[in-house]
Amino acid sequence: MTAPAPATAPPHVLVRSRELVRPALAAAVARLHPWVGEMAGYAFGWCEVGGSPAAGPGGKGVRQALAVLGAETAGAPAGHGVPAAVAVELVHAFSLVHDDIMDGDTTRRRRPAVWQAYGTGPAVLAGDALFALAVETLAAAPGGPGAVRLLSAALADLVHGQADDLLFAARSWTGVSAREYRTMAERKTGALLGCAIALGAALGGAPETTVGALDQAGRHLGVAFQLVDDVLGIWGDPAVTGKPVHGDLRQRKKTYPVLAALGSPAAPRLARLLDEPGRAAEAAALIEEAGGRAAALAEARRHTARAEALFAGVPTAPAELRVLLDFLIRRDL
Amino acid sequence: MTAPAPATAPPHVLVRSRELVRPALAAAVARLHPWVGEMAGYAFGWCEVGGSPAAGPGGKGVRQALAVLGAETAGAPAGHGVPAAVAVELVHAFSLVHDDIMDGDTTRRRRPAVWQAYGTGPAVLAGDALFALAVETLAAAPGGPGAVRLLSAALADLVHGQADDLLFAARSWTGVSAREYRTMAERKTGALLGCAIALGAALGGAPETTVGALDQAGRHLGVAFQLVDDVLGIWGDPAVTGKPVHGDLRQRKKTYPVLAALGSPAAPRLARLLDEPGRAAEAAALIEEAGGRAAALAEARRHTARAEALFAGVPTAPAELRVLLDFLIRRDL
Repeated sequence: MTAPAPATAPPHVLVRSRELVRPALAAAVARLHPWVGEMAGYAFGWCEVGGSPAAGPGGKGVRQALAVLGAETAGAPAGHGVPAAVAVELVHAFSLVHDDIMDGDTTRRRRPAVWQAYGTGPAVLAGDALFALAVETLAAAPGGPGAVRLLSAALADLVHGQADDLLFAARSWTGVSAREYRTMAERKTGALLGCAIALGAALGGAPETTVGALDQAGRHLGVAFQLVDDVLGIWGDPAVTGKPVHGDLRQRKKTYPVLAALGSPAAPRLARLLDEPGRAAEAAALIEEAGGRAAALAEARRHTARAEALFAGVPTAPAELRVLLDFLIRRDL
Repeated sequence: MTAPAPATAPPHVLVRSRELVRPALAAAVARLHPWVGEMAGYAFGWCEVGGSPAAGPGGKGVRQALAVLGAETAGAPAGHGVPAAVAVELVHAFSLVHDDIMDGDTTRRRRPAVWQAYGTGPAVLAGDALFALAVETLAAAPGGPGAVRLLSAALADLVHGQADDLLFAARSWTGVSAREYRTMAERKTGALLGCAIALGAALGGAPETTVGALDQAGRHLGVAFQLVDDVLGIWGDPAVTGKPVHGDLRQRKKTYPVLAALGSPAAPRLARLLDEPGRAAEAAALIEEAGGRAAALAEARRHTARAEALFAGVPTAPAELRVLLDFLIRRDL
């Protein structure tokens, strides 16, 4: 008898992209001020506080894989996507470091967040350094101003999405619509996924229409990914997600399933439950009963289908794109 | 009898640059998320919390003037320098917003710092947005990847200099040399001044050697400016500087005059005085007696002379550059 493969075995493209990109990413980080470089290494899960090598897994590296696949979609060798991959991974790390400060999130990937480990001021600086390094990397790449324009558009969306997200937290339960939330998610999560694949394609020499289609596809993928993440944040298995059960409800996060359920007749009851401590399990059950979970998954499927249709319109898109999409959206949910 | 002109009347180039650049800067800021845009407007001194117009003076606008003069040095109309001016003013605002968080500085230009007025998280976001907007502005300008490379090199220096500055604060009084301090000041202050004029020249179409010379000149100007600022931070007239008398000493800042004096035989006595509260006036007198003030001014003159020599090597450099330099270094000190 052989043990069954784990349900979430990472697709090979994540592994080969990490191996391809890591040296360039490490070389970029090595150009930073040593202290700032250590914080960057900690953020990537490469080292612990003090600089000793880390045992942690780090992130999945979805964005670097998308950049590599973008270059391959353009018919270029994977290596042409590396500067794009480095830039988007740096931007992703920057946004996590700063978002954790803004959101007051104390842990990230089962370790103290950078601001908890090094202090708020140093974490602000580390994020700034990662951001600057991303721009520097792309400015030095052969992609020209078009590549920097793609990145800066994604950065603008990222910041806009984060602003909306912060303001949503201050509104009442019924003060945010599911539609507003979707727009926020496209900016905050979708823009950088779209940018990753579009940037890879642009550096690979793809025509502008292909770059645009891949950007759109990545954005839909990002929204779908966020919605699945929202479902996992309420009903996910803590052993798999690494987050406490009903965590998003106890943190009073206005995620898609909650907002969808608040659009149903159960809204007044649900809003009361959400405001009472210790009743997260009941709230989760009511959200499911009111159709919030089903609505989130249906919306995720819609965005996945749109991403797939856009990929299908690009005949050179490699099959691994579809594999990665399947992995991210976890069809078995 | 006419009243004497105030000693610090701003040179005309500051006024005409502000008038030229302001519409483009305001248009850029208007593209931000409205909430983030308000914070940006507050940082620029354009509005108060809530968005009502501000009475405050805002910054001097030195960087935008240098960008405009850079374009004119290239023989281009002033307007060609505007995207450079917008980008460097945005980067400067970003760095002040984030530095105030890192340094724990609660006031800026006689008003609460952005993080005091809006909270730390929102201030992190506002800085990020200003940073992203700067990159976006330059990526959209006709200068091509060379312009973005100039800006990203300055950003890397800026972050490196800020990291050094933060670490200096944690060292002992004799643990930082005057030379290390000068390198930090070139990165933290000089790089963006150099970038401002170089970027303006690049967008104006100046040859690379001119761009490089102007960049170097701006860096020397920045170091000189910082040294003069250090002298004012200890011995400046609070009515003029807007800062408390001996403020930098009471904040235990390791500035050039202090570090220079700590290189003299007075070091042990001075280190003891600096560590005792309420003895800032005695410390200031001892620093002056030990030659710290004279050393800072001499070093400022050296850097000013180097900037002037570099400007002199560029025959098309307008006379207003020299006027601006005189204004910034305040020869009457």
